[in-house]
Amino acid sequence: MKIRPLHDRVIVKRVEAERTTASGIVIPDSAGEKPDQGEILAVGNGKVLEDGKVRALEVKVGDRVLFGKYAGQTVKVDGQELLVMREEDIMGVVEA
Amino acid sequence: MKIRPLHDRVIVKRVEAERTTASGIVIPDSAGEKPDQGEILAVGNGKVLEDGKVRALEVKVGDRVLFGKYAGQTVKVDGQELLVMREEDIMGVVEA
Amino acid sequence: MKIRPLHDRVIVKRVEAERTTASGIVIPDSAGEKPDQGEILAVGNGKVLEDGKVRALEVKVGDRVLFGKYAGQTVKVDGQELLVMREEDIMGVVEA
Amino acid sequence: MKIRPLHDRVIVKRVEAERTTASGIVIPDSAGEKPDQGEILAVGNGKVLEDGKVRALEVKVGDRVLFGKYAGQTVKVDGQELLVMREEDIMGVVEA
Amino acid sequence: MKIRPLHDRVIVKRVEAERTTASGIVIPDSAGEKPDQGEILAVGNGKVLEDGKVRALEVKVGDRVLFGKYAGQTVKVDGQELLVMREEDIMGVVEA
Amino acid sequence: MKIRPLHDRVIVKRVEAERTTASGIVIPDSAGEKPDQGEILAVGNGKVLEDGKVRALEVKVGDRVLFGKYAGQTVKVDGQELLVMREEDIMGVVEA
Amino acid sequence: MKIRPLHDRVIVKRVEAERTTASGIVIPDSAGEKPDQGEILAVGNGKVLEDGKVRALEVKVGDRVLFGKYAGQTVKVDGQELLVMREEDIMGVVEA
Repeated sequence: MKIRPLHDRVIVKRVEAERTTASGIVIPDSAGEKPDQGEILAVGNGKVLEDGKVRALEVKVGDRVLFGKYAGQTVKVDGQELLVMREEDIMGVVEA
Repeated sequence: MKIRPLHDRVIVKRVEAERTTASGIVIPDSAGEKPDQGEILAVGNGKVLEDGKVRALEVKVGDRVLFGKYAGQTVKVDGQELLVMREEDIMGVVEA
Repeated sequence: MKIRPLHDRVIVKRVEAERTTASGIVIPDSAGEKPDQGEILAVGNGKVLEDGKVRALEVKVGDRVLFGKYAGQTVKVDGQELLVMREEDIMGVVEA
Repeated sequence: MKIRPLHDRVIVKRVEAERTTASGIVIPDSAGEKPDQGEILAVGNGKVLEDGKVRALEVKVGDRVLFGKYAGQTVKVDGQELLVMREEDIMGVVEA
Repeated sequence: MKIRPLHDRVIVKRVEAERTTASGIVIPDSAGEKPDQGEILAVGNGKVLEDGKVRALEVKVGDRVLFGKYAGQTVKVDGQELLVMREEDIMGVVEA
Repeated sequence: MKIRPLHDRVIVKRVEAERTTASGIVIPDSAGEKPDQGEILAVGNGKVLEDGKVRALEVKVGDRVLFGKYAGQTVKVDGQELLVMREEDIMGVVEA
Repeated sequence: MKIRPLHDRVIVKRVEAERTTASGIVIPDSAGEKPDQGEILAVGNGKVLEDGKVRALEVKVGDRVLFGKYAGQTVKVDGQELLVMREEDIMGVVEA
C-alpha cells in the first residue's frame, strides 16, 4: 500500500541515524529531537501554476533532503511513519 | 439525493475501519479521533483559474484519499455524514 | 421589489424545512440553528477576472445550494429574510 | 460643489425612509441604526486592472444600492452627509 | 526647495479653512481635528504595474482632493507642513 | 570597501544637518530623532517583476531622498553608518 | 558531503572575523552577536516564476553578502555551521 502525493507534494521518510554522525548534516537541536533529513519516496505530478500548466518538481524519488523541523504532516503507512510535505518546504538536497 | 460540488470541491465519505488495521495508513491520533482517510463520491468541474479557464481536478470519483484532520465541512446526506472539501486539502491518493 | 446582485454575488432564500427530514441534507447543528441550505433567487453577471473579463457563475436561479453557516449577509426584502453571498461561499448544488 | 470619486469609488446618499416601510428592503438592526441602502450620486472612471486598463463600473448614477453597515467613509458636502465607498462594497442593486 | 514624489505618490497641502464653511465638504470630526481635504502640489510619474509598465495618475497638480484622516506621512518643506500619500489614499476630487 | 545592493534595494547615507535648517525639509520629530533624509550612495540593478524581467530603479546615485523613520536596515561600512532600504520605502526626491 | 539548495535558496557560511575590524562592514549589535555577513557556498537553480520559468539568481558562489540577523535556517555540515536562506534575504554584496 502506498500514497501518491498530489501536485507539489512529496512523501518523505525521515532518516534518523545521521544525527549522531560527526560528518553528517544535522539540524542542531537541543533535546534529542528528530533530525530534519529524509529520503523522498514519492513525488506529485508537479505544481499547478496560475495559468493551469503543471511544473514538474525539482526533487525526485531517492533524493536525500533537508527540511524544517515542523514541515509537513505525519502519516503512518504499513506501520511506518512518513511525512507528506510540499516541495516548497524542502531546503536542499544532500549530495554525498 | 446527492450534492454536486462546485469548482474545485469534492465530496468525501470518511473510511473509519482502516484505523485499527496494522497495515493500513493511519493519521496518528491520541484520542480515538476519526482517521483522515476517505473515498471520493463526487468532484466539481474544476478549479477556476485567474484567466477564467477551468482546470479539471486530479482526483476522481472512487479515489481513496488522505486529508488533514480538520479539512472540509461536514454535511449529512440521507442520514450519512459526508465531507465537502477542496482538492487543495487532499494530501494524496492511497494506492492498494 | 427585488435585488440584482453585483458580480459574483447571488441572492439566496433559506430553506428551513429540510432540517427535520431524515433523508434530507442537513448541516449538523447543536442548538436548533438554521440549516445552511437554500434556493437561489438571483445571480450576478459573473466574477470580474484580473484581466477585466467577466466569468458567468456556475449556479443559476432555482438551484438548491449548500453553504457555510456564516456565509453571506442577511437582508429583508418585502418582509422576507434573504441572504446575499458570493458564489465562492457555496459548497455545492443539491440534486434531487 | 461636488465630489468626483476616483477609480472604483462611488458617492452614495443614504436613504433613510425605507427602514420603517413594511415592504422595503431593510438590513436588520437592533438599535435604530441607519439602513444600509442608498442612491448613487457619482461614480469613478472604473477599476484599474493589473495590466493598467480601466474597467467601467457596473453601477451608475441613480441606482438604488445595498451595502454593508460599515461600508465606506462618511463625508459632508454642502451640509449633507454622504458616503464614499468602492463598488466592491455594494452587494446589489434594488430594482422597483 | 521641493519634493518630487516617486511612483504613485503625491504631495498634498492641507486646506484648513473649509472646515468651518457651512457649504464646504468636511470630514466629520469630533474634536477640532484637521479636515481631510487638500490641494495637490506634485504628483509622481505613475504607478508601476506588475508587468513593469507605468500608469499615469488620475489626479493632477492643483486638484482639490479628499482623503482619509490618517492618510499619508507628514513632512515639513520650507517650514510648511505637507503630506506625502499614494493616489490610492485619495477618495475623490472636489469640483467647485 | 562598499556594498552593491541587490534588486530594488539602495544604500542611503543619512543627512543630519538639515534638521535644524529653517528652510529644509524635516520629518517632524518630538525627541531629537534623526531626520529621515539622505543621499543615495548605491542602487541595485532593479526590481524583479513577476515575469522575471527587471525594472530599473527611478532613483539614482546622488539623489537626496525622503524616507520613513523606520525604513531600511542599518549597516556600518568603514566606520560609517549607512541604511539599506528598498526603493519602495522612498517617498520622494528632494529637489533644490 | 554538501547541500544543493533548491530554487532561490543559497548556502551561506558566516564570516565572523570582520566584526572587530574597524574598516569592515558590521551590522551593529549590542551583545556580541554574530555579524550578519557571510560567503556564499552554493546557489539554487533560480526562482520559479509564476509562469513556471526559472530566473537565475543574482548572487554567485564566492560572493561576500550581507543579510538580516535572523535570516535563514542553520544547518551543520561536516561539523560546520551553515545557513540556508533565500536570495530575497540578502541585502547586498560586499565589494572589496
